[in-house]
Parts: sequence; structure tokens; C-alpha cells
Amino acid sequence: MAEKSGDPVSCADLSVKRPREEEEENGISSIAMEMEGDTNYTSTKADGISAVISGWFSEISPMWPGEAHSLKVKKILFQGKSDYQNVMVFQSSTYGKVLVLDGVIQLTERDECAYQEMITHLPLCSIPNPKKVLVIGGGDGGVLREVSRYSSVEQIDICEIDKMVVDVSKQFFPEVAVGYDDPRVKLHIGDGVAFLKAVSAGTYDAIIVDSSDPIGPAQELFEKPFFETVAKALRPGGVVCTQAESIWLHMHIIEDIVANCRLIFKGSVNYAWTTVPTYPSGVIGFMLCSTEGPPVDFKHPVNPIDRDDICGKSKRPLKFYNSDIHSAAFCLPSFAKKVIESKH
Amino acid sequence: MAEKSGDPVSCADLSVKRPREEEEENGISSIAMEMEGDTNYTSTKADGISAVISGWFSEISPMWPGEAHSLKVKKILFQGKSDYQNVMVFQSSTYGKVLVLDGVIQLTERDECAYQEMITHLPLCSIPNPKKVLVIGGGDGGVLREVSRYSSVEQIDICEIDKMVVDVSKQFFPEVAVGYDDPRVKLHIGDGVAFLKAVSAGTYDAIIVDSSDPIGPAQELFEKPFFETVAKALRPGGVVCTQAESIWLHMHIIEDIVANCRLIFKGSVNYAWTTVPTYPSGVIGFMLCSTEGPPVDFKHPVNPIDRDDICGKSKRPLKFYNSDIHSAAFCLPSFAKKVIESKH
Repeated sequence: MAEKSGDPVSCADLSVKRPREEEEENGISSIAMEMEGDTNYTSTKADGISAVISGWFSEISPMWPGEAHSLKVKKILFQGKSDYQNVMVFQSSTYGKVLVLDGVIQLTERDECAYQEMITHLPLCSIPNPKKVLVIGGGDGGVLREVSRYSSVEQIDICEIDKMVVDVSKQFFPEVAVGYDDPRVKLHIGDGVAFLKAVSAGTYDAIIVDSSDPIGPAQELFEKPFFETVAKALRPGGVVCTQAESIWLHMHIIEDIVANCRLIFKGSVNYAWTTVPTYPSGVIGFMLCSTEGPPVDFKHPVNPIDRDDICGKSKRPLKFYNSDIHSAAFCLPSFAKKVIESKH
Repeated sequence: MAEKSGDPVSCADLSVKRPREEEEENGISSIAMEMEGDTNYTSTKADGISAVISGWFSEISPMWPGEAHSLKVKKILFQGKSDYQNVMVFQSSTYGKVLVLDGVIQLTERDECAYQEMITHLPLCSIPNPKKVLVIGGGDGGVLREVSRYSSVEQIDICEIDKMVVDVSKQFFPEVAVGYDDPRVKLHIGDGVAFLKAVSAGTYDAIIVDSSDPIGPAQELFEKPFFETVAKALRPGGVVCTQAESIWLHMHIIEDIVANCRLIFKGSVNYAWTTVPTYPSGVIGFMLCSTEGPPVDFKHPVNPIDRDDICGKSKRPLKFYNSDIHSAAFCLPSFAKKVIESKH
């Protein structure tokens, strides 16, 4: 059974074309455009692609061509257009309430625990006694909710560009926006890049970049100058965790991010991932890096939050994160390992 | 930030109702039923729910109410009705060729590596020198392809109920059906339960149950009498790996399987999981059990296939599986751990 050539779709070659190349051929033949069912709810066609048709929200994007995940809609609760994006909240039939920005699902009540807990505890459990933490994006407040579990933390800054996201989350997702109730939290509405540039060097122990995809307002957050500013704002041995797309869909984007991070961060540079059913391909990745200084071993948490004495009994229990799943998140399938580790 | 009561959707309570309870209220308000777009391709409405409409295949089932994953269809290559189920193959626009049984995606060329490699190597890397292996289901041949990597294996029996699945795979999925080329493989067309009952006690080192969901022809493969027959057919310290649904969607089914397995298998009983983008919720689980006898530690593979000297350079390289991801597959999110470990 020798290997045959011409395997039509190799796992190692899965990645879609970069969004720029894809845009032109994405075309219009999407569910949203071709279907002619009853439009029971106001469509979000302003987004270009995704839409609510016949009681279903279908998520279609050039970031994941040829596939769409759909959720049944019970009721649209909010639709607005901010200075930056279209904002929608709907009550789904089986995933609780859902927050959608520019046609892309940001969170559902049913599976938000996985993303919020992992993007927060992967970096914060990897350093002893984090004191100053910055969140870029994350306007829904879920990351704040998780950061607030750490009694060592003294200051939690958040810089979110879109006030409408904050307001909508406070109105419709109280279990997520509860993060804002922590008195250590200071909200800055504005551009994350500009905010970081104004920060004194070495200010933060940890920076968490909870961004949307690199199409739209978050584009700059995936580029090299941004990572340079992040590195400057961190103390020696400080850590950053940024949303870093899907190994099944965006290997080219991940390759670029990893290459940039290896140039900029002189400590550790690692990729981790987790399951989130309502994100495209069902997984989402995180780039974890540390600056030169006290070494950080991301794979072996030194500050375990899942111990009762740290987590605190006054908080809601962790639903997803534990120390085992922390370490497991760094184990990559062979096709991804090959690409990511070749950047060494 | 005390925990608030009334969290509307708790991760720990995510599971859908059991299919039986759900069926009545599943209703007809699905994409397939409500949409009135051009039906460019013959619809598979015979399946009841899933359908190809306007050039998209949408996978809808009472097993995952309120959501649907859709793939863009380039061309339908095959549609047939066997004695057991509807069989369809289509060329998708971004996932390669796709095999669909009774409206449910069984494999796509793009992500089949994850499922086939994990369901095979999790059990076979956990025992030294497997010699006799039985595959129940798995008519596409992908599991056979993976079993054939082991030079220690002398006999590979496969019992698939539906000959049409074998024929269709050989015709449309040569890179998967290549598993049948191994001279150690003996194909039995028939009922897996009856086949197993006729097997002498203690025959197999490993049994792999590569079944579809517990609605339709595979239903019996999730029930207690079946597991009893499996245990009898295994040698002491032999292992079984069965497809065991999604922790995000089917916690009630998993709970039952785990409880049954703990009663029947007197060796190890473990649950593992992996990512498969085109399966509902993006993940699939595996029940791994061993019979009384030489102890099996599933979490630490003793027979690593990812070493070149074992895997053999004549085979296509492993795309997904490696020893790290083997161990990581047993790390569960807290909400699943709580339920699965409470069955002790």
C-alpha cells in the first residue's frame, strides 16, 4: 500500500487562500443569496453575506468559503450599526443568546465558556502572581469575568473600540458582562493600537487580545507593528495571548503570525487551540508569547486557577478550563505541528 | 462578583434531549423544509430532513436540533438507496468529496484523517503487538488503511452491514478504500452483532466500532448486549474503541455508554475525543475499554505508531495522529469530566 500521489485534498494543504485572494471568487452563490424562503426576520444583508432567512441565521464568509454554520433563530433581540460594524443579538433555539458582529458569531451562551476561559487562563496560569492585565477587544466582558478570578490582580484595563458591543453585552448577556462589575476593571473606549502606543514600556504582566477576525476593525491586531507595541508594553517575562484563528481553515494566517511572533518575542512562542462548536471548523487557536526575562513555560501552568483556594468559592465554577486541558491545548495534530514548528 | 443563579444555558447542562424525546418537537421548520430556492440537484428529502438545495448540502437532524452545517456542492456524484440507508457522494467546493449516509456526513476528504487515525491508533497504540483486529462498520475502508500500518497485525476482519458503502468508497474514495488492498483484510458483509456472537471467545486483540449515529442501522451498537458480546470476543487485556458522539451535544448518550462500559469491562474504561470540523459541534468522542487481564493504560501509548520504524516509510505519512495528541485526547473539559468521572 505505497502512498499514492495526487491525494486530492491533503490535510497539510487545507488552508483556504488568504482572504484577499479569495474575495473576488467568493461570489454570490451563498445560501443567503440564493435562497428565496420567507424572511421572517430582518435580514442582515448589510453585512454582505450572512443573513437570517426563514428563521435561520447562516454564517457565511470569505474566511471559510464553501461552508456555513446555521443556528435556528427564535427571536432577533437587537440589530444596530455602530461606527465600526453591524451588531446583532438573537435568541437561538438551542444555543441561548448569540452575539453577531458583521455577520460573524462572536459568542453564544452555550459555548462561550470554552473561549473565554481558555484565552484568559492559558496566559494567566502561566505566570506567578499577575498584577496588571490589559484586555484589547473583548468588549463583551467575558475575558474580564475570567481575569477577575485572580486575587493577585490589582489592575484590569480593557480597551474596546466599539462602545455598542459593551452596551449590548451589558443589556443582553449579564452572565458575560458581569466582568465589568469588578472594581479593578477600567474601561477605555478607543483604538487598541493607539492605546498601547501610549502605554509606558513594561507596564503589563499580561495582555489578552480578544479580537474578531482579521477582516474589519481587528485587521491591525494581526500585523507585525501591533505585536511590536505589545512586546514593548509588557514587562520582562510578561505574556500575551491573542486569538489566532483555526488550524483547519487558516494555516496561512497562523504561519504569518507565528513567523512574526518568533521575530518579536524573545521568550517563549507557542500555539494552543481549543474546541468552540459555534466557531468555523469548531476550533479556535491562541498565540502565546513571552518577552525576554524570567522564562515562561506555557505548557505547564505554574499558577493553577482550578484549585478552589485560588479560584474562590464566590465565583461561578469553571465550566471548561482545568490544568489538564491547559497542557493538552498545546498538543497539535501532525499537519499543524509541521507548519508551526518549521517556523523555528 | 458572586455567582448569579439562573444562568440560562449552563455548559454542564448542554446536552440535547435524547433523540426519542426530541423527535416530536423537532418539527419541520428546518432550512430544508422552509427554503424555496432553486433545487439545482436532486434533493435527498427521502432522508426526512437533510437536503441539497440551491447548491448547498445542509445537514439537519434531531440529533443536533437548532443547528445545521452546510457545504457547498459542486456536483452530486452518486445517489442510491441500499437495503439499509440512503447513500450519497458529492464533490464539495472546499472539502473534497463527501460521503453522506441517511443525510449525515460520514467523511470528507479534507478532514477524514482526524477521525480515521484517532479511532484506530488510540486503541492499537495502547497495546503491544496487536495481532488480530476486528472492525465493525467502517465500510469506507479508512480504518483498515490505518490498521494496516501495524506490521505486528496478522488478521484484519471487517464486518460491514451495507455493501453499497464499500462499493461507493472503492469507486469515489480510493485514498480511503485503499485499506482493502491489504492482503490481511477479510471483508464480511453482514450484521456486526450476529458476526460477533458467532466469534469464539477471546479471539481479538482489538475491536474498533466505526459506526454511524445511534439512529438507524447502528442503533444496536450503542446498547449493553452489544458491549457484552464485544467483551466476550476480546482476549484478556484486549481493547475496544467505539465511536461515542460529542461531549457538546450528546452528554446523555455518553453518560449511558460510560455507565454500561463500567459494568461490562473490568479493565480500563476511558473517554477520549478529537476535532473533526464536518461532524456536528466539530468534535467526536471515543469510548476506550479493556477487558480483565494485562492492564492497559490508554493515556500513555506503549506502541507508538508515529515512529518511522513502526509506521513504515512505504505508507502515506500520518496527517493527524501523534503520541502527544494521543495523550491529550483524554483530557476533558471540566463539564464533561464531571459527568464522565461521576460514573466511577
